Amino acid sequence: MSTTYSYAAQSASSPLAPYEFNRRELRADDVAIDIDYCGVCHTDIHFAENDWGMSVYPVVPGHEIVGRVSAVGDKVTSHKVGDLVGVGCMVDSCRSCPACESGLEQFCKDGFVGTYNGEDRHDGSITMGGYSDNIVVSDRFVVKVPAKLDPASAAPILCAGITTYSPLKHFGVKKGDKVGVIGMGGLGHMGVKFAKAMGAEVTIFTRSKSKIAEAKKQGADHVIISTDEAQMTAATEQFDYLLDTIPVQHDLNPYINCLTFDGVHILVGLLEPVEPALQAGGLVMRRRVLAGSLIGGMPETQEVLDFCAEHGITCDIEMLNIKDINTAYQRMKQGDVKYRFVIDMKSLKA
Amino acid sequence: MSTTYSYAAQSASSPLAPYEFNRRELRADDVAIDIDYCGVCHTDIHFAENDWGMSVYPVVPGHEIVGRVSAVGDKVTSHKVGDLVGVGCMVDSCRSCPACESGLEQFCKDGFVGTYNGEDRHDGSITMGGYSDNIVVSDRFVVKVPAKLDPASAAPILCAGITTYSPLKHFGVKKGDKVGVIGMGGLGHMGVKFAKAMGAEVTIFTRSKSKIAEAKKQGADHVIISTDEAQMTAATEQFDYLLDTIPVQHDLNPYINCLTFDGVHILVGLLEPVEPALQAGGLVMRRRVLAGSLIGGMPETQEVLDFCAEHGITCDIEMLNIKDINTAYQRMKQGDVKYRFVIDMKSLKA
Ligand SMILES: [Zn+2]
Ligand SMILES: [Zn+2]
Ligand SMILES: [Zn+2]
Ligand SMILES: [Zn+2]
Repeated sequence: MSTTYSYAAQSASSPLAPYEFNRRELRADDVAIDIDYCGVCHTDIHFAENDWGMSVYPVVPGHEIVGRVSAVGDKVTSHKVGDLVGVGCMVDSCRSCPACESGLEQFCKDGFVGTYNGEDRHDGSITMGGYSDNIVVSDRFVVKVPAKLDPASAAPILCAGITTYSPLKHFGVKKGDKVGVIGMGGLGHMGVKFAKAMGAEVTIFTRSKSKIAEAKKQGADHVIISTDEAQMTAATEQFDYLLDTIPVQHDLNPYINCLTFDGVHILVGLLEPVEPALQAGGLVMRRRVLAGSLIGGMPETQEVLDFCAEHGITCDIEMLNIKDINTAYQRMKQGDVKYRFVIDMKSLKA
Repeated sequence: MSTTYSYAAQSASSPLAPYEFNRRELRADDVAIDIDYCGVCHTDIHFAENDWGMSVYPVVPGHEIVGRVSAVGDKVTSHKVGDLVGVGCMVDSCRSCPACESGLEQFCKDGFVGTYNGEDRHDGSITMGGYSDNIVVSDRFVVKVPAKLDPASAAPILCAGITTYSPLKHFGVKKGDKVGVIGMGGLGHMGVKFAKAMGAEVTIFTRSKSKIAEAKKQGADHVIISTDEAQMTAATEQFDYLLDTIPVQHDLNPYINCLTFDGVHILVGLLEPVEPALQAGGLVMRRRVLAGSLIGGMPETQEVLDFCAEHGITCDIEMLNIKDINTAYQRMKQGDVKYRFVIDMKSLKA
């Protein structure tokens, strides 16, 4: 068992710093991966800083992992040494509940095991994520990264990508639909690319006029300034879908008002109470739907990578030296990244 | 043009009392109906008493109408004199918008014309409802009442029935699904019958132990006392659908927690702000859906009547002499009716 080099938070208040530990010996279904790239997700910050009160230290974050298979367990047939593979937010689940049997492991009745800060189902150890030079993951939770994709900019597809692709697909976005994407961060800009690739007419809702040019560059057909009442009123009942990526409390009602009858407002960022209060009449009077969505299952995670390869979609990234991870966290808190930091794992050993 | 006898509210504070007026001359697409029965809906009370601040007096309520065709306009081919027919909540719409073209007139972009207190699209007059001896309605908004159905107990199908049937059908309730019905009034008891007829296993959620026997009598397979925390906890993630018929503010979160992943919570009674606040995490973490639904379109209104005839479903009613309408309103406010008053229109002339 060789030493794993990583960056970890040792407490809620300490910056991430180098940390060494050992990965487990390979089980029969395990795949060992040498990590090349790992995307930096807002969830990483929440766990590093214990924002949700559930962190177990040390925390080695990272769940947008791309690398090469270095070894496989005895029973692994789906991956072989040298393959370019990915690991996203999950590394295990019960595998036998209705959700798991439907390939929706994110809704496993036992809860899925997170790629970091999860509890291993076999030995009870706490999982360590992708800010490290290698990882060991059960084959079911390892996906193939198509050769067509740039490995670094493919990494964020494993979380930001699947999180936005999955609900657009699940709730049925199709050619000609009008899709609004609310918020233009890591999730939002991926949502725009997916909705466009699915044939939709895409509008970005943003609070700031300063983002119009950038929104157009991202491929949006239209931009609506959500703080402009006249623009919002003009958008009344115009949208089939809204993909709402805003992670903080905001008034859903003006957006729901922009949906046609049978329109669907999809929450992928919000986990808090909905305040100001949701107007039930806004749903009832037009048979609208307010839905949530959480990452995506493993079959779908493979599907989104293949979809990206087919449609030439990648995440816009800024490559990061892992020694700058704490600065990156600060910049992310200020929204100062287009649109995802991806750690070049070579920097770990440099 | 003969005199129409009716009961009307002349102001928000005056009780309903006899009122005479004239129905319009038949237009080419009109059907004149001699009314036999009219159900009494809570909405009638809201309009009679101007609870929503939009009443135009005099208000002749009533939108659960069953009667016989007495005359038809020149171009009417779908109905003929003597037919047993029904009129529900709508008497007109634009007929050319996407909603109307999909047979979802309740979502007409111009707004549908209500059976009472609506504004006629041709002459601007205010529509008068079914607490009257006759009504004149455009053929598209007249449905056939199957001979198999008892006409009096069929009347509430035109509002309470379609309101509950439509979302169960639309959102896909099927054999083996677990459906919870929240509230056991006029809407709730119809919801139970429909969900059972669709093959679901049905649970009634009620606040009171005193309603258990009645819930079982209505056909519920199980009863959950919603005020019993242990019972609610035991119901966690057990339901595919919840049909929520409660018309006043209530905490949705404990109910949403009872839904499986992909479960659907359907609001048919609530029009107010959702308070206490909806927990977005309850939707996101399980890809649950919160949806609203409003009556149903005209094709579906015919469909529910045919479905009721096929499955032997009617509404449980208490027959009412129209002279007792004000007492009936008082009793309804106290929840003292099983489950719908239906006015026997013969009492109007007695
Ligand atoms: Zn993430
Ligand atoms: Zn499972
Ligand atoms: Zn009604
Ligand atoms: Zn219309």
